[in-house]
Amino acid sequence: MRTEPGGAPEHDLRHHGDAEVRDDGAGLVDLAVNVRADTPPRWLREEIAASLSSLAAYPDGRAARAAVAARHGLPVERVLLTAGAAEAFVLLARALKVRRPVVVHPQFTEPEAALRDAGHSVDRVLLRERDGFRLDPSAVPEDADLVVIGNPTNPTSVLHPAETVARLARPGRTLVVDEAFMDAVPGEREALAGRTDVPGLVVLRSLTKTWGLAGLRIGYVLAAPETITELERAQPLWPVSTPALAAARACVTPRALAEAGHAAHRIAGDRAHLVTGLTALAAHGVRVVRPADGPFVLVHVPDAATVRHRLRDLGYAVRRGDTFPGLDQNWIRLAVRDRTTANGFLKALSAVLAGGVREDPSG
Amino acid sequence: MRTEPGGAPEHDLRHHGDAEVRDDGAGLVDLAVNVRADTPPRWLREEIAASLSSLAAYPDGRAARAAVAARHGLPVERVLLTAGAAEAFVLLARALKVRRPVVVHPQFTEPEAALRDAGHSVDRVLLRERDGFRLDPSAVPEDADLVVIGNPTNPTSVLHPAETVARLARPGRTLVVDEAFMDAVPGEREALAGRTDVPGLVVLRSLTKTWGLAGLRIGYVLAAPETITELERAQPLWPVSTPALAAARACVTPRALAEAGHAAHRIAGDRAHLVTGLTALAAHGVRVVRPADGPFVLVHVPDAATVRHRLRDLGYAVRRGDTFPGLDQNWIRLAVRDRTTANGFLKALSAVLAGGVREDPSG
Repeated sequence: MRTEPGGAPEHDLRHHGDAEVRDDGAGLVDLAVNVRADTPPRWLREEIAASLSSLAAYPDGRAARAAVAARHGLPVERVLLTAGAAEAFVLLARALKVRRPVVVHPQFTEPEAALRDAGHSVDRVLLRERDGFRLDPSAVPEDADLVVIGNPTNPTSVLHPAETVARLARPGRTLVVDEAFMDAVPGEREALAGRTDVPGLVVLRSLTKTWGLAGLRIGYVLAAPETITELERAQPLWPVSTPALAAARACVTPRALAEAGHAAHRIAGDRAHLVTGLTALAAHGVRVVRPADGPFVLVHVPDAATVRHRLRDLGYAVRRGDTFPGLDQNWIRLAVRDRTTANGFLKALSAVLAGGVREDPSG
Repeated sequence: MRTEPGGAPEHDLRHHGDAEVRDDGAGLVDLAVNVRADTPPRWLREEIAASLSSLAAYPDGRAARAAVAARHGLPVERVLLTAGAAEAFVLLARALKVRRPVVVHPQFTEPEAALRDAGHSVDRVLLRERDGFRLDPSAVPEDADLVVIGNPTNPTSVLHPAETVARLARPGRTLVVDEAFMDAVPGEREALAGRTDVPGLVVLRSLTKTWGLAGLRIGYVLAAPETITELERAQPLWPVSTPALAAARACVTPRALAEAGHAAHRIAGDRAHLVTGLTALAAHGVRVVRPADGPFVLVHVPDAATVRHRLRDLGYAVRRGDTFPGLDQNWIRLAVRDRTTANGFLKALSAVLAGGVREDPSG
């Protein structure tokens, strides 16, 4: 683990997985985007469609806010609904008085990008493969007054113990824990959402990944009431659309939580299958970061750029790893899919690594 | 016309018409909210519903941006899609380097609220009834580097000549013209949207009012490419949802523009009917601001608060006027509705003004 001072970023912090499956990537099997397959479910689409009949009215977020608060056992004053976690990052970067923000990498790059766009100089703590990308709280500078970490972390899939993360809290420090993928972890073990005993804690949640609502823009922030008030003041009027509010209410019902729990267990099984298959390719220099607890895995593959392009020729899109600070050209991130899809992908990857793939398979 | 220095606002800048028809106002005939009645039309609801099948993918705003640009004959670099005009106000307040912002009142209060929330001290130019709430460009301080004006103006319904507004432009000044209601003006005469010869011009447009999409959050900004870039940098990633993007594309087709044009003419007729009815109540101190060119009218009514409460007892919600800087307790704003609705309302208002209404009509 090392700390890197703020400066011009060398990485393309604005590269995201969706770029891999756009345009000429539109027909590819998608292992690039971390959204659960076959989502949103039919019942959820129907709930959202029903909300379209009241589009002429301005959004009224009160019921959705109350539902989210109840789901986490919190008062509504501790909840802010946002247009996706992406809006929350911008609010945090622009509304809070921050002198020394630190981001723990590798992780989702949008928090750092939002901080930089708001004029901050951002320091980085880089977790390393040889430490299993695990967090050592003592590596975070004492004077950091904003610390951002993901749990489980995108792209490493490392699930940090809740108590280790909580040890980052300090008086006068805002501790932002991005739990966008926590609902894909069985039992949400290690979640800090709902905790009120950690000073300065800000938890971000997304409904995008588990429920397939990336297009709808809905997420939320859990924090102390005074922090929520500060963030809310920086929000536009009517920040969350009526269909997104309908989705938020629908996704925190006991039925929806049970469905997410089942999906988390299925993902764990599918991930184990994928990891086993990848481990079998160790002779080609393939290494999986383990234990992996998110709905994706981070994989070391020598010369990943070439591998990635050949995989595209075979019909598979994967997420490049080198745009994440702390990773280099030899990493890819794979979304966990069903076993049939994984088997097809593993076969393609084997072929690529065995060198049996020509540049133009149609030639 | 006079200029009022920045300071703590005396008005509730965060009061909006939707508050009048919420909760205990839910059953009232709505003349409070400036959204066209019977919207969104069926064909538009269907276009939006069709987009729900691709919610799992992140929003891709390129096609909608291109469609909006083409509608105004501009290159895409001059267009920014936003989550409603409300988001645009926050972006302008937070992203632009501004020293002396000035807002021309009475007008929609959200621009000033967003500027204040971003830490700015905001000066006001107050247009007056005795001048017909018309703009005199010389009243705006020369050193104002951000000027915000609505055209047609909410709540006065005054349509300022495009050339008068354009005379507010200066080197080093950003001139923000909120044209949220311009598509309700036949022929969109006096529009500055699409103009590239006015230095520092920023035009805001909304699809909310004409198309009944208040719940969906969609609008856009037209400005010089460098301004668009600055605003875009302050936006969250994926700022506009997939259903909102579908709506934006659908609302700028020639068919939609023709429908909006027909609606604008119908509104003009309905407005004339309403104004005639109101003018007949002049003996009770009722005065309508004229000429009115928006889909609403501003009406002087002595002791408007009492009148408003009695109208509620009779089943009608109207917008209070006293939260708009420059107006006092004797104003209400009325949305233009069909003639049958207007006739019912005028009858109720006559009864209230004649003093024939008891506090509790059920008693």
